Parts: sequence; structure tokens; C-alpha cells
Amino acid sequence: MIELKLLEDRIRDQGEIVGDDIVKVDMFLNHLIDIELLCAIGKEFRNLFAGEKINKILTIEASGIGIACIAAQYFNVPVVFAKKGVNRNVGSDIYTGEVFSFTKNQKTQIGISKNYLTAEDRVLIIDDFLANGEAVKGLLGICAQAGAKVEGIGVCVEKGFQPGGKELRAMGYHVESLAVIDSVKDGVIRFGSYPKK
Amino acid sequence: MIELKLLEDRIRDQGEIVGDDIVKVDMFLNHLIDIELLCAIGKEFRNLFAGEKINKILTIEASGIGIACIAAQYFNVPVVFAKKGVNRNVGSDIYTGEVFSFTKNQKTQIGISKNYLTAEDRVLIIDDFLANGEAVKGLLGICAQAGAKVEGIGVCVEKGFQPGGKELRAMGYHVESLAVIDSVKDGVIRFGSYPKK
Repeated sequence: MIELKLLEDRIRDQGEIVGDDIVKVDMFLNHLIDIELLCAIGKEFRNLFAGEKINKILTIEASGIGIACIAAQYFNVPVVFAKKGVNRNVGSDIYTGEVFSFTKNQKTQIGISKNYLTAEDRVLIIDDFLANGEAVKGLLGICAQAGAKVEGIGVCVEKGFQPGGKELRAMGYHVESLAVIDSVKDGVIRFGSYPKK
Repeated sequence: MIELKLLEDRIRDQGEIVGDDIVKVDMFLNHLIDIELLCAIGKEFRNLFAGEKINKILTIEASGIGIACIAAQYFNVPVVFAKKGVNRNVGSDIYTGEVFSFTKNQKTQIGISKNYLTAEDRVLIIDDFLANGEAVKGLLGICAQAGAKVEGIGVCVEKGFQPGGKELRAMGYHVESLAVIDSVKDGVIRFGSYPKK
């Protein structure tokens, strides 16, 4: 069983519950950022993906960047992040994808320069949240265009009651979530966990 | 005289000159990110602002986030980043500002939750580039609204031929730039440097 107790405790203590499906972690993860927590998260990702040969960490702006950069120190690899708002017609030097945000109810174009993701790359995808998996799937599409191999997907918080994690595991990806929220009901957050691999 | 030779060398070796005023550093600083370089940058900021009592690092999405997070480790402080595309009418719980981008020729609304920046804060502003200083001025406006004290402004690359740095120093701010580009002419980048403080 995998869990980063530290992160789960912080979500339980400080996470702000909105309705029956949103837990805001603005106060330590994706607006104000607790760097000590991020270092613990980064080290844990290093442990969880110790068996994979990773030469690049891939994420998406904005809230993935800090997590990816701190984690990258422990992997000794560079980070590349997909930029949002990239026009599909920018030319032939960018891999593009489309990400639908359920929270914002809108599509966003994302893009990565072809120079920075290639068929030589063995990638770890990192993001803050995994719910429907739209952002990760957008990044997977870009990796496929580049011919880059995806060695793993590491997320801080997975919403276990939404299908993204299950779908990605069914597709054969090595997905690790440091905290899995199984339900948010009547103001109570219940956590679950997944077996490794 | 201040310089982070490492950064200057990388700009000279890898920076991509576009016309007479743009140097792209996409390949190590703000799209693909060299984390080893970022660690050197973070440590250098720690040295340069050793005399200031800083309890929070403030930056703006997206390319400031990685630099700010890596630097924050050496200051043992949290990071807060201004979000872009924030609507001015989102309510009373957000400090907002406006940033004009000369590169994109458009205005962007930025915002920070009032919970994460207060009159208790002594802030170091960090960003990747300083040219006309629009992003930094937007962040200064938000600090003024919050009553937060700005202890310093640290940027990786200052374009010395644009007025932002000069203006901010004239306003009395402690500005440190790790590399100052004095001119970009005929494909040659000339570097300058500023006296401390």
C-alpha cells in the first residue's frame, strides 16, 4: 500500500471541501506552496519510481511546475512543461494537444516544443491532481507524437471516485498517487490507497 | 559586481537571438528547465539577499514558479504565485493587478488570494526576466494592497537596455539580476553588471 501520510494529514487538516467532489488544497499545494512538503513529495516519487529509467520529467503549467521541479532534483533530470493557450496553428515545431477542464468547463490547447521532447526520452509525468485524467491524457498524446516512452505517472492527489486513475492503470501505465481521496461526503474526506503497480 | 557566470555562459552558448531585442532561453530556463542550473540560481539568490529577513517568495505563473520553488528551499520559506487570467470581479477575497506583456501585446489580469499574502509578510519577488518590469510592478501593486513589505526583487535575466530594472532601483528596491544583457546586436549578446544594491 502506498501513501504519503504527511500529504494525507495535510489534506485532512487543511483541505477545503467544496460540495461533494472538490477538495481545495490552495493553502499548501497549488497557490501557496509549502516547499518542505514538496521536498517530501519529490523524494517519495523518487522512491516509487526507483525501478524506472527516467531521463525527463514532464508536467503542465501552472500548478504542476513547482512539484515537477522539486522532484526533478532527486531524479537528476530536467523538467519540461506543456504550455497552455498554445494555438494549434503555430507551426510545425510544436506538439499540441487538447485538455478539457471539468472544473472550468472549457478546452485548453497545450503544446511542447519538438526540440524538448523526443523519441530518446523516457518520461515521468507529474501533476498535482488526477480526477478525470484529462491533463495526463493530453500529455500522453504529446508523448505519443514525440515517440517518447512514458515510464510512469505520479500525482499528488488522486480523486478515486473519478475514473482517470482507473483508466490509466487499465491502459497499462504505472500510476502512483501519494494520496487517494475515495469520497467527500458531508464534509468528511475518506482516503483510500492503491496496491503498487 | 554581481554575476552568476554559469547563467551568463549558458545564455551566450545556447540563448537564441531573435531580432535586436529578444533572447530566448527556452532550452534551459523557461520551457525545458535545467534543474542543476536552477539550484545554482536559487543558492545565488540566497547569498544576494542574505541581509534581508524574508518569510515568503512571491512569483507569477508560469515560468517564475520553478525558479521560485527551487530558491525557496534555500530560504526555508513558502512560495505563493500570482495566477493569470483572474477576473477582476471574482469577489473580495483576491488581490488583483494588471500586467501588460509587450511580447504578447496584451494585458493579463493577475490575482493572489488574500489568505496567502498579508501585512505580516516580508517578500522576495522572483521572476525569470526583467525587461520593462511590468510583471514585477503588477506584483508590487498586489503587495501594496496586502500591506506586505517587499524586501527584494531577484531576477535571472535583466534586459539592461529596457527600463524596468533602472526604474525599480530608482524606486528604492533592492534588485538583483544574475545576468544583465546590455545589448543584442548583429547576433552578439553583450553582458553588463550592476553594483550591489
